[in-house]
Amino acid sequence: MTSELRKDPVIGRWVIVAGERGRRPNPFREYASRVPTGDACPFCPGREGMTPPEVLAYRPDGDGANAPRWSVRVVPNRFPALRIEGTLEKRPEGLYDKMRGIGAHEVVIETPDHDSDPGAYAPRQLEEVLHAYRDRMTDLLHDARFRYVLVFKNHGAAAGATLAHPHSQIIALPIVPIRIESELAGAGQYYAYRGRCIYCDILAQEIADGRRLVAQNAEFVAFAPYASRFPFEVSILPRSHDPFFSSITRHQTEALAQILKDVLRRYKLALKDPPYNYVIHTAPPGDPHPERYHWQVEVMPKLTEVAGFEWGSGFYINPTPPEEAASYLRDLERVMDVPDGHLLESPAPGGGH
Amino acid sequence: MTSELRKDPVIGRWVIVAGERGRRPNPFREYASRVPTGDACPFCPGREGMTPPEVLAYRPDGDGANAPRWSVRVVPNRFPALRIEGTLEKRPEGLYDKMRGIGAHEVVIETPDHDSDPGAYAPRQLEEVLHAYRDRMTDLLHDARFRYVLVFKNHGAAAGATLAHPHSQIIALPIVPIRIESELAGAGQYYAYRGRCIYCDILAQEIADGRRLVAQNAEFVAFAPYASRFPFEVSILPRSHDPFFSSITRHQTEALAQILKDVLRRYKLALKDPPYNYVIHTAPPGDPHPERYHWQVEVMPKLTEVAGFEWGSGFYINPTPPEEAASYLRDLERVMDVPDGHLLESPAPGGGH
Repeated sequence: MTSELRKDPVIGRWVIVAGERGRRPNPFREYASRVPTGDACPFCPGREGMTPPEVLAYRPDGDGANAPRWSVRVVPNRFPALRIEGTLEKRPEGLYDKMRGIGAHEVVIETPDHDSDPGAYAPRQLEEVLHAYRDRMTDLLHDARFRYVLVFKNHGAAAGATLAHPHSQIIALPIVPIRIESELAGAGQYYAYRGRCIYCDILAQEIADGRRLVAQNAEFVAFAPYASRFPFEVSILPRSHDPFFSSITRHQTEALAQILKDVLRRYKLALKDPPYNYVIHTAPPGDPHPERYHWQVEVMPKLTEVAGFEWGSGFYINPTPPEEAASYLRDLERVMDVPDGHLLESPAPGGGH
Repeated sequence: MTSELRKDPVIGRWVIVAGERGRRPNPFREYASRVPTGDACPFCPGREGMTPPEVLAYRPDGDGANAPRWSVRVVPNRFPALRIEGTLEKRPEGLYDKMRGIGAHEVVIETPDHDSDPGAYAPRQLEEVLHAYRDRMTDLLHDARFRYVLVFKNHGAAAGATLAHPHSQIIALPIVPIRIESELAGAGQYYAYRGRCIYCDILAQEIADGRRLVAQNAEFVAFAPYASRFPFEVSILPRSHDPFFSSITRHQTEALAQILKDVLRRYKLALKDPPYNYVIHTAPPGDPHPERYHWQVEVMPKLTEVAGFEWGSGFYINPTPPEEAASYLRDLERVMDVPDGHLLESPAPGGGH
């Protein structure tokens, strides 16, 4: 039986709930493909037949679909949380609201190299991955049932990854996630009051202040957010105002690949290859107020257990001030040219900014 | 240097951020006292001198403060996230808002027995713990700086507990946590539209429907929420409408202890002693709309890793339908009289409701 989207009647948060299976539940069941570690990775070149047929791949002209010589490959998730076929059938259940679990759930296989990771990719590799995000987002948004496309990466088991081969995920949803709704509402209030995009103002303040900056290039700024929930959280914002990730230019894609790789490489050096997640935040398609929102990438290493009281209250305790996290990540500049495999235990004392 | 409360400028969420320490950060630093496992637990009777002086204890009349013969003992956290002394000094930092990290951070030592747990307490023990929650909440709310008192328990390392001796925590805050704000707003909208408390309506529907019920007694109903984020999440609501946990009666306290122990014992039986958290949700003191809100206890076992995309988007995938979780927990009724230490691997097939 297909899954359902159910709405919390008080706070309005939608949740994907698995369909009933008519047998004893396994509380540990998850929605990612699992394979025994070792020899049969379904994401490795030559094993294209182990995944559903690809929906996108970048490979040399002339090679056929599902052939081995690809650089990035996007396939449907074998165990999708949502199904692509059918109508939404929105309906009530007493005072509750639900709809069928309609959506898309895809896996972006980021590289043919099983043992690589984004902090170690060759210069063009992450650029290709970002192109794939944009191409799939654009394609999925042609489907009028979808109100949002969520792009994210889980790196490392503690961050939710269930396969070692580098991959990220795309989920197309018939609703807008509550966090994005909150951001749109908050940015809208600021715009109504001050007549400017709050993220443009934040960028200007962060650049002028400097204490929370992690990295910059011509197109993007990476900084530790003022009210970070987690140690070493980083936001990456484009310098130019745009609400939609899908309108990213080729030039911006190059610059985003550069700064994202830079941040992930700093994590790897500073925090000893931590598990991490990143999520792209973008306005929903057709947003009627494009002046208020500013797309961005949120990056979070998973260094500490998040206690349940934090989920229950929305109240977080962050033991590492973002100014210290940023200073620490900035100070790695002298060691950023060390090849992978020669990572220092920690940067030498002194120096800094 | 003291910590700060900082507000996310877009979504309005307040976060406690540690003070800067002028040295290299340890990203794993936490705000709970840690001791080597084994012989020197500071929460055990006879070691009262290892904690700060108690703020509350239940013990035989005639014994002095900080003496050993207590049943429940509340002490300030040795490494508090917030400090009790000082003024809030609310102030801007450019477009950001902050205030000093003023508040209280206390530890409720739930039992003298180091090796016990709430699912195994003697009948009166959990009742005493609930009395301590109410007494401390009432006392802390006499301080006009505090707008909310958060009561929660982290059980097990994966749920955030750093000491094995059974304890819970109380944090008094100068702000209302964003999740509670969202609940008050959502319940207010429902009240404005339908003229009733949404939680009273949810209770009526859950009792009539029955599929998500876990346990009931004369005063409380425990059920798996319709839009549960996590497998085996349980909400416990009082049958009678009241927005404030602090107005709980002695009779209700007995009934809450009974049903909470019942739920935690079901977890222990069904899920093999899982890590879990519970959080008390209550209206802020002096809430001007007491007709709309209904205090409750949220209980969440920690069975799966929460992926970062869920923190980044507010969008959750729950692999276990609440109807199945509830049915599974209900079906344990036949084995609930098995003594601790003789837990079954799983309930026998058949039976049920």
